[in-house]
Amino acid sequence: MPDASTTRPPEALPEDELRALDAHWRASNYLAVGQIYLMGNPLLAEPLRPEHIKPRLLGHWGTSPGLNLVHTHLNRVVKARDLDAICVWGPGHGGPAVLANSWIEGSYTETYPEVTRDAAGMARLFRQFSFPGGVPSHVAPETPGSIHEGGELGYSLSHAYGAAFDNPGLVVACVIGDGEAETGPLAASWHSNKFLDPVHDGAVLPILHLNGYKIANPAVLARLPRQELDELLRGYGHDPIHVTGDEEMAVHQAMAAAMDTALDRIAAFQSAAREHGATDRPRWPVIVLRTPKGWTGPAEVDGLPVAGTWRSHQVPLAAVRDNPDHLRRLEEWLHSYRPAELFDHDGRPRPQVLECVPAGARRLGANPHTNGGLLLRELPLPPLEEFAVPVDTPGATLHEPTRVLGAMLERVMADSAGRRDFRLVGPDETASNRLQDVYGATGKAWQADVLDVDEDLDRHGRVMEILSEHTCQGWLEGYLLTGRHGLFSCYEAFVHIVDSMVNQHIKWLRTTRALPWRRPLASLNYLLTSHVWRQDHNGFSHQDPGFIDHVLNKAPEVVRVYLPPDTNTLLSVADHVLASRDYVNVVVAGKQPSFDWLPMDAARAHCARGAGLWEWAGTEDVRRGPDVVLACAGDVPTLEVLAAAQLLRRHLPQLGVRVVNIVDLARLMPHEEHPHGMTDAEFDALFTPDKPVILAYHGYPWLIHRLAYRRTGHTQFHVRGYKEIGTTTTPFDMVLRNDLDRYRLVMDVIDRVPGLPVTAAAVRQRMEEVRLRHHDWIREHGTDLPEVADWSWQD
Amino acid sequence: MPDASTTRPPEALPEDELRALDAHWRASNYLAVGQIYLMGNPLLAEPLRPEHIKPRLLGHWGTSPGLNLVHTHLNRVVKARDLDAICVWGPGHGGPAVLANSWIEGSYTETYPEVTRDAAGMARLFRQFSFPGGVPSHVAPETPGSIHEGGELGYSLSHAYGAAFDNPGLVVACVIGDGEAETGPLAASWHSNKFLDPVHDGAVLPILHLNGYKIANPAVLARLPRQELDELLRGYGHDPIHVTGDEEMAVHQAMAAAMDTALDRIAAFQSAAREHGATDRPRWPVIVLRTPKGWTGPAEVDGLPVAGTWRSHQVPLAAVRDNPDHLRRLEEWLHSYRPAELFDHDGRPRPQVLECVPAGARRLGANPHTNGGLLLRELPLPPLEEFAVPVDTPGATLHEPTRVLGAMLERVMADSAGRRDFRLVGPDETASNRLQDVYGATGKAWQADVLDVDEDLDRHGRVMEILSEHTCQGWLEGYLLTGRHGLFSCYEAFVHIVDSMVNQHIKWLRTTRALPWRRPLASLNYLLTSHVWRQDHNGFSHQDPGFIDHVLNKAPEVVRVYLPPDTNTLLSVADHVLASRDYVNVVVAGKQPSFDWLPMDAARAHCARGAGLWEWAGTEDVRRGPDVVLACAGDVPTLEVLAAAQLLRRHLPQLGVRVVNIVDLARLMPHEEHPHGMTDAEFDALFTPDKPVILAYHGYPWLIHRLAYRRTGHTQFHVRGYKEIGTTTTPFDMVLRNDLDRYRLVMDVIDRVPGLPVTAAAVRQRMEEVRLRHHDWIREHGTDLPEVADWSWQD
Repeated sequence: MPDASTTRPPEALPEDELRALDAHWRASNYLAVGQIYLMGNPLLAEPLRPEHIKPRLLGHWGTSPGLNLVHTHLNRVVKARDLDAICVWGPGHGGPAVLANSWIEGSYTETYPEVTRDAAGMARLFRQFSFPGGVPSHVAPETPGSIHEGGELGYSLSHAYGAAFDNPGLVVACVIGDGEAETGPLAASWHSNKFLDPVHDGAVLPILHLNGYKIANPAVLARLPRQELDELLRGYGHDPIHVTGDEEMAVHQAMAAAMDTALDRIAAFQSAAREHGATDRPRWPVIVLRTPKGWTGPAEVDGLPVAGTWRSHQVPLAAVRDNPDHLRRLEEWLHSYRPAELFDHDGRPRPQVLECVPAGARRLGANPHTNGGLLLRELPLPPLEEFAVPVDTPGATLHEPTRVLGAMLERVMADSAGRRDFRLVGPDETASNRLQDVYGATGKAWQADVLDVDEDLDRHGRVMEILSEHTCQGWLEGYLLTGRHGLFSCYEAFVHIVDSMVNQHIKWLRTTRALPWRRPLASLNYLLTSHVWRQDHNGFSHQDPGFIDHVLNKAPEVVRVYLPPDTNTLLSVADHVLASRDYVNVVVAGKQPSFDWLPMDAARAHCARGAGLWEWAGTEDVRRGPDVVLACAGDVPTLEVLAAAQLLRRHLPQLGVRVVNIVDLARLMPHEEHPHGMTDAEFDALFTPDKPVILAYHGYPWLIHRLAYRRTGHTQFHVRGYKEIGTTTTPFDMVLRNDLDRYRLVMDVIDRVPGLPVTAAAVRQRMEEVRLRHHDWIREHGTDLPEVADWSWQD
Repeated sequence: MPDASTTRPPEALPEDELRALDAHWRASNYLAVGQIYLMGNPLLAEPLRPEHIKPRLLGHWGTSPGLNLVHTHLNRVVKARDLDAICVWGPGHGGPAVLANSWIEGSYTETYPEVTRDAAGMARLFRQFSFPGGVPSHVAPETPGSIHEGGELGYSLSHAYGAAFDNPGLVVACVIGDGEAETGPLAASWHSNKFLDPVHDGAVLPILHLNGYKIANPAVLARLPRQELDELLRGYGHDPIHVTGDEEMAVHQAMAAAMDTALDRIAAFQSAAREHGATDRPRWPVIVLRTPKGWTGPAEVDGLPVAGTWRSHQVPLAAVRDNPDHLRRLEEWLHSYRPAELFDHDGRPRPQVLECVPAGARRLGANPHTNGGLLLRELPLPPLEEFAVPVDTPGATLHEPTRVLGAMLERVMADSAGRRDFRLVGPDETASNRLQDVYGATGKAWQADVLDVDEDLDRHGRVMEILSEHTCQGWLEGYLLTGRHGLFSCYEAFVHIVDSMVNQHIKWLRTTRALPWRRPLASLNYLLTSHVWRQDHNGFSHQDPGFIDHVLNKAPEVVRVYLPPDTNTLLSVADHVLASRDYVNVVVAGKQPSFDWLPMDAARAHCARGAGLWEWAGTEDVRRGPDVVLACAGDVPTLEVLAAAQLLRRHLPQLGVRVVNIVDLARLMPHEEHPHGMTDAEFDALFTPDKPVILAYHGYPWLIHRLAYRRTGHTQFHVRGYKEIGTTTTPFDMVLRNDLDRYRLVMDVIDRVPGLPVTAAAVRQRMEEVRLRHHDWIREHGTDLPEVADWSWQD
C-alpha cells in the first residue's frame, strides 16, 4: 500500500497533537479488542489467563480500527471548530469501535451509569459486548450517538442525508464500508446530493472506507483502479480526497488534513450559497480512506495472513481460550497499544487520550440530534373542518380522498415553513397520488439544472421525489430519527421494496421502548395509494396488498394499519398519525373519486373507535339483533358492502343486516396481542358471537383469519378479499374477479343465512345473472356494465 | 438539444437504408399510437371519429419512440451481422413499442395467430392493448421476446447480465430508462461488469435512454452535465458512446454508427480474451441515447408543451373522444407517420418497412433465449447416497446440513462444468453459509484485480458473490429465464430485501402457466440459512422469518416452502427443487451442527410425503391413538420437539405422544387451496381431529393458524414459534425466550392433555425450574445451562 497522501502537507499537525490523537486511537483500539475477547482482567493487571477470555468469541474486529480512526479525527475537528456534528456508522459490525469511543468520551457512562469510566466499568463494557443479555455487536439503538442500525447494510448515506435536511448547522459524517457500497440502496443514495439545499440543509461528509474485503471476498470498489474510482465518485457529484496508508503517524497526518480540507470546502460552499446567493450545485467532498482491514491486529495467524485480509473480518485469533499460543498472541496484541500509557491504575483514560475529545453535547455520543425526541416539537396540524368535505347524505357526493389530503398537507407545509420540520417523500408519485396541492406551499427539492418547462422544482423545497423507494425511506428515517416529522406516499404495489428497511425501523422503535433515555420520535407514516384494486394499466405484474401482512408480523406496540373508507376518515386518520409518536403507521387510501360516507364529526368518532357499526347502512332490528353482519375494511370493500346492503334492503327487506366498518385493522386482534385489539366482549358485541359475518377486506383475506381466529364467532366469518387475481381490466371487473363484488356478497349472505324466504333463491339467481351480464358486456365494450357504474347509494 | 453526434461520421449509412430504417421506425411509432388510442379504423381508411377511440385511454407514449428507435437499430445490426441478440426493455411501460415491433416482424402473429399481420390483426392489436381482458400496457410474460417484467423498475440490467452469463454467443442489449436508473437495484447492477467473463459469457450492451423525465419530474441522470455523466459511466467501468438529437435522420445515422462502434468493440474484447488470452477487464461500451420524451408526438396541447416534457409520459392528447380538436390533432399525429407508405391496403407492412427485419429465430421477438424453457436441459444431479450421512440411530451424530449440501453442489458444479448451465449466487455468504466445498469445482466469478492473498477467485467461476441481494436475484432470474439452473443462498434475515423482486418472478411464472408457448423453466431456488434462531452476534436488529409468509401470500401453484429438519432431508429437498420446474422454492435449513434424524432412504420417503409421523420418536399406542401430537417444522423446532418427547417419555411414560414432522409447509393448507395441501381426511389422520396438537414452528406462529384454520381439529392447535423476541444471546436462550423450548413444550402438553396422573404437576414444576435455572446460569456464565447443551437424543 502506498504511503499516506492528501492535498495538504503532512507536517501540518504539531507533534504533541499527533501523539495525543494516536493515544486516543490506540485507546479505542484497545477497548475494541477488549470487548471482543475479555471478560476479566481488563487492564492486563495480571498475565492473561484462559478464564479471562469469553467462552464464545463474537464481534467484528476488521472494521474497528478504521472506525476508531474516523472517530478520533472527528473528535479533533469537532473540538477545534466547535462543530455540531454527528456520525452515521455504516459498517454493520462497528459496535466495538463506537462503544469504545462513547466510553472514552464519557457519554456511555452518562447513559448507562453502571458502566463507569474506570476499571470496573471497563470490565463491564468488555463483558456485556455480544454477551447473552448484553449489547449487540453492531451499532444499535442502545448505542449512544447512533441513529443508524448496523444490522442490514445499505442505508447509511440516505440516513445521513435525512439527518442533514433542515439542519443547516449540522455536519453529518457518514462512514460507508466498501461492502455496504455494493448494495443497491447505498449505490442509489449517492445522488442524494442533488436534493441537498446548501442554504437550509446541513452538510453530509461521506467517508468511503476501503479496507478491501467483505466477509470472504474482496470489495468491488476497493479493487477499482484509483482513476476509475475517482471518476465514479465525481460522477456521483463528489470531489474525492484520498487518505491511504498503513503507517499510523502518516495516516493521522493525512486524515487530519483531509478532514480540514473537506470541512473548509463545506464551509465555503455553505457560505457561498447562504451569504452570496450561489446556486451552483456544489461538488461536495468525499473522503476515501484506504487502510488495511483489521489494521494493528495480528499480521498472521497459524501461518496465514490476517491483517489486511478478509480473515480479520471477525475474530482474528479464534482459539484464545484453548490455544496458549493464541492467548500469548492476544496478550501481545493488547500490549501493543501500550495500555499503561492510555489508562491510569484505576482504568480511567489519561489526559492525553482525552485531549481531542470535545465537551458536553458536542461529543458524538451525546449530540442531541442523535436522540431526536429531545428536539422534537409538536407538528402544527390545522383544524380538519377546514378541509372536510360536507356530507349531508351518505353516498351522495364523490371526492378524491388523497386530493383533499393534499390540501391539508399544503397547510401543514405552510404552517411549518418557518420551522422546516416536516417533509413529504415519494418516488416521483406525489402528483400521481393526487397530493399536488402541497406544491402550493413548497416545491420539490432539486439542486440540479432546471429547464423552462419544469414545474414546482424548488431549491428550498420540502417535497422529496426520487425514483428510489429505498432512498425515500432512508431519507425519511434519518429525518424522523433526528426529531422531525414526515409522510411517505407510495403506490401500494411498490412499497414492498422497503420491506426489510421498515423491519429494521420497527425493531429500532421497539428496542427504544426499553430505553428511557431515548425520547419518543414522530411516527413513520405511509400513505399507500394507487392500490391493488386499480389495475387498469398494468394488470397483474406487481400488484400486491401484502405490505399490511408484512408489518403486522412485527411488534404490535409499534405497528398500526388504517384503512379509511372515505375522504373525511382519511383526514381524521392523517391527523392522528401525524400527531402520533414511535409508531409505524400504514394508511391505505384510494386516490380515485369515491363516495363520501361520513361527515367530519362522525368520521372522527368512527376513526377514534377504529371499528364500528354503521346503523344508517343496515336494516337491523335493534331489539332482536342482526341476521347477518356485512363488514368491510378498505375503500373499495366498503363501497361493495354498502352496495350489497342496498341490494339486500331492496330485495330481501325482511333481512336484518348489520354493517360494520373497520378502519383500524388491529381492532380485530385479541386485546392481549395488540393494544388496539378489542376485548372478546367488544368483538362479540360488534360482530355477534354466532351470526354469519361476511367481511370484505382490502387485502389478502387470510390475514383476517389469522387476526381473528381466536374469536368466538370466527367459524362464522367468511372473508372476501384480494385473492391474487389480477389483470388489465376495469375497477369493477377487478372486484368481480376476486369475488368481492356486491352481487357476490349478496349471494354469500343468501348462502349463509338460514331460514330466508323462498324469494331468496330468485334474488340469488338475479345476482348471478348480473355477474354474467357484466362478463359479456366488458368483453364487448371494455367498460363496466352501466348499472354498476351508475349505481349510487340510496337512490 | 444539440445535433446528433457520435464517434463515426453520419454519412456512413446509405440513403436507401436510412429511409428503410426510418420507415420501420415510423411504422412502429404509428402502431404504438394506434394501440393507445384506437379500437377501430386502424389504417385511417376513413376520417377518425369518436367511436374509433377507446373509452378509456391508457398506456405510455413517452418512452415508446425511443424504444422503437432502439428496436429498429437492433434489427439492423442483428441482420447485418447475423447476431444472436436479445433485448431487455427496462422502461416499464414500453409495451406499445415492443408489441408494435413484434407484430411488424411477424413473431407476434406466430405466437398469437389470431392477431394476423394485416388490417384485421392490426385492429386486434390495437384493441387488446390495455383493454379489459387484453394485454398489459407494459412488457410482460405475454410479450414475445421478453424475459423482463416491465412492472416494477430496477432489474433490467441484472436480468441482462443473468441472460449473458454462460451464453458466449449472445449479445444482450438492455435499455435502461433514466427513471429506472435512479433505483437502487439498477444503480448497484452497473458493477455486474466485474463479474462478466469475456470468454464464457456473452456481452451486455446497456443503452441508457435519457428522455429527460419520469412521471412528473426530471430524471437525475438526464440533468447531469455531460462530463459528470461520462465520469459516472466510466466509473461504472463503461466507455460511453453518445447519441443525442431530435432530428430523425441525423439520429438514425448516429444510432447506426453507435451500434456498430459498440458491437465492434465488444467483438474486439471477446476476441482478445478468447483468442489471445487477454485478461484485462474490458471497458465495455454503453450507448447514451438522448432523445425527447414523447418524440414525434404532439409538441404542445392546450397551450402547454408536451413532447420533450413529462406531459407526454402517458397519453399526450387525453380528451380525444370528447374534444374534436384533440381528435383532429390525433388524426394529424397518426398521419404524420405517413401510414400509407408503411402498410399496404390490407394492412400488411410494406417491403421497405421489413427491410431491416431479421429472419426466423434471429428476430428479437423469436429468439429462443427469451423463452428459456426451449433451451433448458435436465441438470445432472448426483446420487444422494454419495453425500448422505450415515444414520444408524436418530440423534446419535451431528452434521452441518449446509456443509454437506456444499459437497453435493460441488458435484453438480463439476458435472455441469462442460455445459455451464448452473450457477450459485449469494451476497458474500457462500462460505459463511458453509457451502464452500463448491469451490472445489469452480471459483467465484471475478474480473477485477486479484491479490496474492485472495482465495477462490476465478475468471471463469460460476459462484457469484456480490454484496447486493438485488443483483444476486436479478442475475439468477435472468439466468433461469434464459433456460439455465441455479440456487440463491442467503441469510434468512436479509432475503426480505428481494421481497418485491420475487413477487414479480412468481407472477411471471404464474402468468406463463396460461401461455403454452412459454416452456417451463428451472425453478428459482432459495436456500435460507443463518436463520432467525441464531442471534448470537447481533441480536434482534434485523432477524425475521417472514419471507415464508410473504411468498405464501402468492400463487399456490408456484410457491413451495421446505423446512428440512436435518442433513439428509436437506439433501433430498435440494435434489427435488433443483430438478423441479416453474416453482419458487424456499428451503430453510441451518448451517450449525445439528442432529441427524433420518437415514437417506427414510429422509427421501419423508420428504416425498412432505409431512409424516415419526413413530420412533413417539410413545403412541397404535391401537388407541395418541393423547397428544407434538408437531414440528424446521430444524430447531424439531430438536426441541424431540427433546420434549424424550422428557415426556422419561417423566410421563404412560402418555401417548405422537411426533409429526412437517417438511413441506403447504401440506398444512387445504387441498383446494394448494396442490400440496392435505385432504381433510389425511390431515385428521395425521393430526387427529380432536387431540391437542402442540406445533413448534420455525417462523411466526400465526402463519400456521392462517394455513390450518379450516381444519377440523384447528381449535386444538397450539403453535409455538418465533414471536419476534430476539436479542444478543445463545441459541437455547433464543428458543426459551420465544417459548419454543423443550421444557415449555412439555408444560404445554401438561396444560392441555386432560386426565394426566397427579405426578404431572410435579413434572411441570421441574420444567419450570430448569427454565429459571437457565435464566440465572446464562446471566452468570454467558453460556447455555450444561444440561441443555449436553442433551442427546435417547441417551
